[in-house]
Amino acid sequence: MKIFEIYDGDVTSPKGFLASGIHAGLKKSRKDIAIITSEVMGVGAAVFTTNKACAAPIIVSKTNIESGKLQGIVVNSGNANACTGIKGLEDSHKMLKMASESLNIPKENLLVASTGVIGVPLPIDIVLKGIKTASQKLSYEGGRAATEAIMTTDIAIKNIAVSVNINEKKVVIGGIAKGSGMIHPNMATMLAFITTDINIDGEFLNDALKIINQQTYNMITVDGDTSTNDMVAVIANGLAENAVMNWQHPEVNKFLEAFYYVNEYLAKSIVRDGEGATKFIEVEAINCNSIEDARQTIKSILTSNLVKTAFFGEDGNWGRILCSIGYAGVDLTMDKIAITLKSDGGTIKIVEAGQGTNYSEEDMSVLLKHQDIKVIVDFNQGKESAKGWGCDLSYEYVKINGAYRT
Amino acid sequence: MKIFEIYDGDVTSPKGFLASGIHAGLKKSRKDIAIITSEVMGVGAAVFTTNKACAAPIIVSKTNIESGKLQGIVVNSGNANACTGIKGLEDSHKMLKMASESLNIPKENLLVASTGVIGVPLPIDIVLKGIKTASQKLSYEGGRAATEAIMTTDIAIKNIAVSVNINEKKVVIGGIAKGSGMIHPNMATMLAFITTDINIDGEFLNDALKIINQQTYNMITVDGDTSTNDMVAVIANGLAENAVMNWQHPEVNKFLEAFYYVNEYLAKSIVRDGEGATKFIEVEAINCNSIEDARQTIKSILTSNLVKTAFFGEDGNWGRILCSIGYAGVDLTMDKIAITLKSDGGTIKIVEAGQGTNYSEEDMSVLLKHQDIKVIVDFNQGKESAKGWGCDLSYEYVKINGAYRT
Repeated sequence: MKIFEIYDGDVTSPKGFLASGIHAGLKKSRKDIAIITSEVMGVGAAVFTTNKACAAPIIVSKTNIESGKLQGIVVNSGNANACTGIKGLEDSHKMLKMASESLNIPKENLLVASTGVIGVPLPIDIVLKGIKTASQKLSYEGGRAATEAIMTTDIAIKNIAVSVNINEKKVVIGGIAKGSGMIHPNMATMLAFITTDINIDGEFLNDALKIINQQTYNMITVDGDTSTNDMVAVIANGLAENAVMNWQHPEVNKFLEAFYYVNEYLAKSIVRDGEGATKFIEVEAINCNSIEDARQTIKSILTSNLVKTAFFGEDGNWGRILCSIGYAGVDLTMDKIAITLKSDGGTIKIVEAGQGTNYSEEDMSVLLKHQDIKVIVDFNQGKESAKGWGCDLSYEYVKINGAYRT
Repeated sequence: MKIFEIYDGDVTSPKGFLASGIHAGLKKSRKDIAIITSEVMGVGAAVFTTNKACAAPIIVSKTNIESGKLQGIVVNSGNANACTGIKGLEDSHKMLKMASESLNIPKENLLVASTGVIGVPLPIDIVLKGIKTASQKLSYEGGRAATEAIMTTDIAIKNIAVSVNINEKKVVIGGIAKGSGMIHPNMATMLAFITTDINIDGEFLNDALKIINQQTYNMITVDGDTSTNDMVAVIANGLAENAVMNWQHPEVNKFLEAFYYVNEYLAKSIVRDGEGATKFIEVEAINCNSIEDARQTIKSILTSNLVKTAFFGEDGNWGRILCSIGYAGVDLTMDKIAITLKSDGGTIKIVEAGQGTNYSEEDMSVLLKHQDIKVIVDFNQGKESAKGWGCDLSYEYVKINGAYRT
């Protein structure tokens, strides 16, 4: 039995959240400014890119989240405001100032995010005017418009909401994301924004986000490149009126499960929409000595161009998978490794005790024709496990990212 | 002034070396067994793949090189003898035994290498018969045949020789390599074999190879995957009759320079022949805090699919380069970074103080039309530097490695 309900909702699904998305002029015709706010001051938590070349909005938002109080997020797409020096920082501050005035929220309680072209100064007048307009268009149904406004080359809309009962109160968690599209001349950004009406302890929320971030957003890869602008942020406004959620709350696991679900769903939806991806690949490493070993192995498999092209080619190439495990830099005994492939087309153990098995090529071909493929790597050594998600490497990926020559 | 002469030579260019390459039947019609030997017992050194999934010949050769005495190398292509369990180890031992008997060299003083398909047992009878035949065909002009016999999907022959005067004696160093071709259903292997008639201390040779390996073979990348079968081996037979070369020899730097040249040349030739590569990219990181920082940054740039596809697209995408520097995991100040691109088409500084410069798109397009591109990353922080080599990521790469579907 699911302990939570899943909806086609978004950041305006929880009680007391408003959002808007409008076209200001950073992109040709699509929406490019989004605002998400809560009626009342909430607690907040966020995680940011670890890339040293981080963008101005990341630097500014990192400072703002320190207070733990959060009431809104302002986002522009079409320009990442990255590698833009002092002017970039000034522009992020201007965005916050304008949002603060228009929304009547202290600017310390707002976050700012940008995604798009790198190294080009923000057309700040257009952005400021856009923020003003967007703040006038806020509504309780604005989640969808905000989702559209944070997209760059994304093909699919990425949104989700779940509800869970805590202290017999209905608690809703909604989330939206954008991911891994590249825009000339630059790079991918992953953004995810989550709102919830749960009444929650700020430090606990921060802990929960950090842990779940390691299990979800940090375990996805489209091309192994970490963007300058990645950000995941949560606002919780408490309007569900449950007893304050923390590690001691009797229903803490129920909340964590629902919160995990939203984040895993958004993370996976980013991979599914990966550039040029034709296959969605889940790798699970089981019976490892440590979670770190499991995660490192999963990343090694999912970032291997040889593994990725093999899946694109619908080739059950266990040699490449085994090879990428071998150079993962993890302590393991190769002779113990077993590998199983799974899809709606079947289940085949392809490696047993470090060696290939005699499987039927015909069965393998049926298995690999499906879009969703699962790889289970059994270390047969310890008790820890982890999961990660990636995609294949296709002609289309090269075309999207390298076709300026044509 | 060059202190050494460069020849179109190979492993039989130095005095007292014989080689052969024949077709035994592992490949359809091309040569697939190679033998390289010295008339007299020499000293030897070798470095091997760090992949935990290492092949049987690697395990066997690692033990044999420990004595430091080396007189020959036997190689098969067409089958990697990797992930083949106990039978694989037995087969490598059988290859050594047959080579030992046919060549009249103790098997402890021979190395064995294999490259080709993974996970398929060696057709050992064909291989043993081939070794016998190849040992009867050894000649002082056999280097070229041996070079051909170690190739898999390589397009270009990779060979070089240099001569250098040491104690007024002519010392020759010759080398051959194969690299980074993939064969269905499996993976790349890099092999390099170097012969020299220098009289040299075994431990010194071992030190020199380990150091130079870090600077050359370890600094190339085609797709970031480390093979199960990689091996670089050197035999030095002393027939040049110079005073024994070691760290104290007055002409030690002359030797090291020549030895470095051969290895860098072979390493670069492997990248040039990388699968589907249309661009050869050299990255130099200068003024870094440590050599390790420099190398890690170079690898981060050269393995970034976004950087690779940008070069394929002839797009001077400094944002992607800066981004890949940012997640290299190296201590650096982004505001100090400068990046310059160079080719026969010009020199353009694209990043200054961590921000893009105003270069002419037209000049950039001329620069990037050339096949050989150099990227200089100036950290402006320390005194250390390093170089590395890679290639672009093209449609052809995806086709070679993932086109089984079509």
